[in-house]
Amino acid sequence: MSSIWGNNIKLSIFGESHSRAIGGVIDNLPPGIEIDMEEIKYELKRRQTGSSALATARKEPDMPEILSGVVNGRTTGTPLGFVIYNSDQHSKDYDNLKTTARPSHADYTGFLRYNGFNDHRGGGHFSGRLTAPLVFAGAIAKCALKQKGIYTVSRIKSIMDIEDTPWDLSAMTYDEAKKMKDMIIPTIDPVARERMEERVLGLKSELDSAGGIIECAIMNMEKGIGNPIFDAFESRLSSLIFSVPAVKGLEFGEGFNVTRMRGSEANDSLYTDGGRIYTKTNHDGGINGGITNGMPIVFRTAIKPTASISREQDSVNFVEMKNEKLTVVGRHDACICVRAVSVIDACATLCAFDYLVEAKMF
Amino acid sequence: MSSIWGNNIKLSIFGESHSRAIGGVIDNLPPGIEIDMEEIKYELKRRQTGSSALATARKEPDMPEILSGVVNGRTTGTPLGFVIYNSDQHSKDYDNLKTTARPSHADYTGFLRYNGFNDHRGGGHFSGRLTAPLVFAGAIAKCALKQKGIYTVSRIKSIMDIEDTPWDLSAMTYDEAKKMKDMIIPTIDPVARERMEERVLGLKSELDSAGGIIECAIMNMEKGIGNPIFDAFESRLSSLIFSVPAVKGLEFGEGFNVTRMRGSEANDSLYTDGGRIYTKTNHDGGINGGITNGMPIVFRTAIKPTASISREQDSVNFVEMKNEKLTVVGRHDACICVRAVSVIDACATLCAFDYLVEAKMF
Amino acid sequence: MSSIWGNNIKLSIFGESHSRAIGGVIDNLPPGIEIDMEEIKYELKRRQTGSSALATARKEPDMPEILSGVVNGRTTGTPLGFVIYNSDQHSKDYDNLKTTARPSHADYTGFLRYNGFNDHRGGGHFSGRLTAPLVFAGAIAKCALKQKGIYTVSRIKSIMDIEDTPWDLSAMTYDEAKKMKDMIIPTIDPVARERMEERVLGLKSELDSAGGIIECAIMNMEKGIGNPIFDAFESRLSSLIFSVPAVKGLEFGEGFNVTRMRGSEANDSLYTDGGRIYTKTNHDGGINGGITNGMPIVFRTAIKPTASISREQDSVNFVEMKNEKLTVVGRHDACICVRAVSVIDACATLCAFDYLVEAKMF
Amino acid sequence: MSSIWGNNIKLSIFGESHSRAIGGVIDNLPPGIEIDMEEIKYELKRRQTGSSALATARKEPDMPEILSGVVNGRTTGTPLGFVIYNSDQHSKDYDNLKTTARPSHADYTGFLRYNGFNDHRGGGHFSGRLTAPLVFAGAIAKCALKQKGIYTVSRIKSIMDIEDTPWDLSAMTYDEAKKMKDMIIPTIDPVARERMEERVLGLKSELDSAGGIIECAIMNMEKGIGNPIFDAFESRLSSLIFSVPAVKGLEFGEGFNVTRMRGSEANDSLYTDGGRIYTKTNHDGGINGGITNGMPIVFRTAIKPTASISREQDSVNFVEMKNEKLTVVGRHDACICVRAVSVIDACATLCAFDYLVEAKMF
Repeated sequence: MSSIWGNNIKLSIFGESHSRAIGGVIDNLPPGIEIDMEEIKYELKRRQTGSSALATARKEPDMPEILSGVVNGRTTGTPLGFVIYNSDQHSKDYDNLKTTARPSHADYTGFLRYNGFNDHRGGGHFSGRLTAPLVFAGAIAKCALKQKGIYTVSRIKSIMDIEDTPWDLSAMTYDEAKKMKDMIIPTIDPVARERMEERVLGLKSELDSAGGIIECAIMNMEKGIGNPIFDAFESRLSSLIFSVPAVKGLEFGEGFNVTRMRGSEANDSLYTDGGRIYTKTNHDGGINGGITNGMPIVFRTAIKPTASISREQDSVNFVEMKNEKLTVVGRHDACICVRAVSVIDACATLCAFDYLVEAKMF
Repeated sequence: MSSIWGNNIKLSIFGESHSRAIGGVIDNLPPGIEIDMEEIKYELKRRQTGSSALATARKEPDMPEILSGVVNGRTTGTPLGFVIYNSDQHSKDYDNLKTTARPSHADYTGFLRYNGFNDHRGGGHFSGRLTAPLVFAGAIAKCALKQKGIYTVSRIKSIMDIEDTPWDLSAMTYDEAKKMKDMIIPTIDPVARERMEERVLGLKSELDSAGGIIECAIMNMEKGIGNPIFDAFESRLSSLIFSVPAVKGLEFGEGFNVTRMRGSEANDSLYTDGGRIYTKTNHDGGINGGITNGMPIVFRTAIKPTASISREQDSVNFVEMKNEKLTVVGRHDACICVRAVSVIDACATLCAFDYLVEAKMF
Repeated sequence: MSSIWGNNIKLSIFGESHSRAIGGVIDNLPPGIEIDMEEIKYELKRRQTGSSALATARKEPDMPEILSGVVNGRTTGTPLGFVIYNSDQHSKDYDNLKTTARPSHADYTGFLRYNGFNDHRGGGHFSGRLTAPLVFAGAIAKCALKQKGIYTVSRIKSIMDIEDTPWDLSAMTYDEAKKMKDMIIPTIDPVARERMEERVLGLKSELDSAGGIIECAIMNMEKGIGNPIFDAFESRLSSLIFSVPAVKGLEFGEGFNVTRMRGSEANDSLYTDGGRIYTKTNHDGGINGGITNGMPIVFRTAIKPTASISREQDSVNFVEMKNEKLTVVGRHDACICVRAVSVIDACATLCAFDYLVEAKMF
Repeated sequence: MSSIWGNNIKLSIFGESHSRAIGGVIDNLPPGIEIDMEEIKYELKRRQTGSSALATARKEPDMPEILSGVVNGRTTGTPLGFVIYNSDQHSKDYDNLKTTARPSHADYTGFLRYNGFNDHRGGGHFSGRLTAPLVFAGAIAKCALKQKGIYTVSRIKSIMDIEDTPWDLSAMTYDEAKKMKDMIIPTIDPVARERMEERVLGLKSELDSAGGIIECAIMNMEKGIGNPIFDAFESRLSSLIFSVPAVKGLEFGEGFNVTRMRGSEANDSLYTDGGRIYTKTNHDGGINGGITNGMPIVFRTAIKPTASISREQDSVNFVEMKNEKLTVVGRHDACICVRAVSVIDACATLCAFDYLVEAKMF
């Protein structure tokens, strides 16, 4: 199922960077969910190009149009179709990519996979632009989760070697999370934020790029949600996270670091207080055996440096099978990690929603 | 789909740690695949308890019985049903777990998810024992992939802070990979291996446990295999890897470390030689845009320290909602990472096979 | 999966009778298929209202717009998104249907299923209008099947008690099938056709409606296509056919009539001639054990009389829970069976295509 | 998904007529369902050979063994694995079928589909024996539905031209339905029953066979259950019914006969009484727009005459590609319609259960 995701809420997406439009269908939405178009536009804007000097200069406003499935501002329960028309296209920028692969891009593999029939312009269906329908769907999910007090909070934990300070999720609030959403580089520490910005701009001026790590938490998630084994919360979420271009790693709770701990340190002891059960630490990231335990669900995503850089690179003309030098022109972010925050956020929200519908919470 | 995995080869598994049997159904196998029962038993033995002082003492031999789908040593193409009977059970060891949660285990979340009806003995369906059907299915996939020269190689990259030396996959051979399979702790460096073994035994004597990182590579994988976005190679494989108990992280190619590189360092330049295309580095781990590029597929999995430790721990009686001390009795490995190698191997093989069937290579 | 159909070619549809648009996404199309927009428009026109005095007067032209997945007239292999905007809407005609159920329509059941949030106007998502995306997808499939010489032929076998004469499929040609497509009431016998037309017009003038039986054959279908048991050719096709509004029955080959035969009459004896295998009769309709045998695939679909009739009927106001008289106003066909021919045709084509992709014929 | 059925309750089956065992996995069962093994054995016995002179003489008792997913007589909520071992096998009876096709069987198509690797003995995976796991799963579903007062009733409506009298479902009770289950040929009219039995025995003595029509009703089904379009109640049920060997037709409510009615006759007028809504007639068979309306769900299934007859028939040796005479030896029923009643019953129960789980009724 290449373009369809979800076990309960099914999202089917379509589009290419330079096609007439991108969009999708969201199936099996519970009826009666209030749709807040301002919220949706806000999320799309977060993801969008042009929001700062840090991002690319593509100017088209991502104006989503809902085509079905909403009446009087509420979901009908039947499929919600939506489109975002593409408008600001410089197809000629990509003429050389028809035969020559941008390193660490999907030009060569896309050519192989589709026998050369795929749309090479701007990366076609592989373009980061395809995350817009994902953010749209995440925003719909957000409209639903809001009524249960469930929300996500995300930050950039690091850009290259610049690290944000640790956060304390026990003190997190919806308003605090909202404040972080409003930041272009959401961090706890303003100094780290400034340094990150400088680094990205510096690399941009050097025709280079940077990667980073995004940390996301799902707050107030219902407990007892998920499944063992093949349909573990981590499994389903990971299948979505790794569908986001440029993601190279994913870890839950203490993640890779937990491999350095002893069991007696790593285990999350339990205690009960006021009729609820908590863990003293949250090294497991809120999930045991694929099922939520009521603690925040915490995960980190590694985003590689933007592959599109304007420096000359060694490449191959895969049609003529010869080595070639390539200089990528066209727009690109110096650090897509910045824009990916909204996408990771959308993935988390959508996945939580998918499970909550499964668990009959809607 | 809790217990079913795969888009083309569908594996449906069943069983609990103390149920009559565990097993599964493998659907949509190509007809005519030669089944090598010795290979299957070898893989199950690798995974099995009792293979060394490092693992637990559960003695039952995992003897798989194929019930259908194979005639004259070849797959018929119709579903292959198989069982492994459980025999060596000490159900009484688990009586206190009916109400009191082992920290960082699924006792509490399983209770929530199944309204208390789940089988608590030995972790029930959440038990690591359920990885045996997965290893069985992986071994079937191995029988198929062998005929195309595709194989996996896995090693323990680290246990706690003890690291193996880097490996050079360009020099890897099938025989070398087989030799590593025969090791209980497969590493490149014999000194690291010895230190890891000592560390695990030391922690065992301290009633504690260790975690580690497994590195796996799929060698000779066909290029052009996979899909963009929701069905990226990383997405499908991650959904399987994160279904393995104790996995807390997954990264491809350079993984989290790539976030510290500049784009100009991280990008894998291409070159052509002798009619084939290669990349000079393999930071992307053999995948671009969700599709294989012909380089080895490399990924690392973080396995947390065994949660079952014999020390007294703080916990909660979730039925009576009160704090309690818990001492876990029964068998458990001091470092499940050791046995998880065969499971991660199976996941990689099964996923590669699933994609190759999709891509009409069988 | 309410709005998604297909195992290989996945069609996800959306829309309501009075929503902004209807449309869908077709996923996993093979790359390189030539798309003939004239053919697509022709098929949509066949289905469309206003094509004759026999159908309703809804005038909007069904102009499909392809939004992605096609470049230079060929499929890219990535999702094909498409929309058909709704324009000719008389929403007020449906005001009383918000609370009062049209007999044998989905007004009451839709209200139950969606807690009253569904779009009641014109039947909403239950409207026969939603067959337009299905016909669109069928036309795409037709573009693909044409290159293999596979095509469907359909006729109206009966309207009420008026029966067409038997057809001889062994003499069927593509041109002959095309000629039948051009007929509003496709029959072999022109006299039957005339009588059917008169009957429908007569019932229309009496504010009543008629049903009928559509017979469809898939010609030149590859042999060995399909699966046993749950994924039998009949199973997959039936799941599509019964999704078409007003379908009440489906039979393959000799169908219900075969229950009156002895086994020795019913069995299709085989013979070989010129290196091919044939059956002397085709009572099984070209399928054995869920798999095609190379003979034409023949099936018949029962379409009930149009439920929307302008006569006063007994009904219930399901909000106030009281009995009420209802007179349905608005446009409706006197015999939807006529327009359903193109839809059944599309189902057959789409299903055949789905299986051919699975069987690696594309 | 060849061997997996269900959207919520997933049944994965395996086995061949002469394999070591047949069986399956039932996934996603709600936890806490009481499992009545006597009920399960009763249903398997209904289906089983040897229950009367009307059926074949295969003597092995179908003794199901539950391997997992049930503790203390209740479902755990994790997968239920089960097997039925095959014991009474006369594999030699089938030696000639390796190359020569039984008319109207799957020998030739199975050979094509699986490149000759399929198990030809006794029809292999195509055997009617594979309906035993289906009946098992239906019996599990029955255990669940019983607690909601939902049950099915089935009868043989006709064998060849011998018709049972009409039944009055408004007077149906659980006890009445149970009485019919105890009959080998369940009919309302004892005279019809006797005539059917005579006819079948007569044909048996003539080395011939008979077909028939099974009518089934789901009583007390919840209303508002199902989905529009691709996931209509009829669609999902039909996909299951057509997976049963020998089924050639399926109709709901008035079915094919409704095409002979005017709309004003066919429409089911509604009325309300005592706070509930009913229809005066039930021509739609309890479903509108794919969703249940609270009336009995009524459908009829056409079962062709047993294809295995002991008369000499014309056939083809498909390996040597030459015409051959074939005489089928081995056991076979003169009228499989008799045994198919329990299978159709199981399909209806399983499908209803699948939807009820989806609709959060469990």
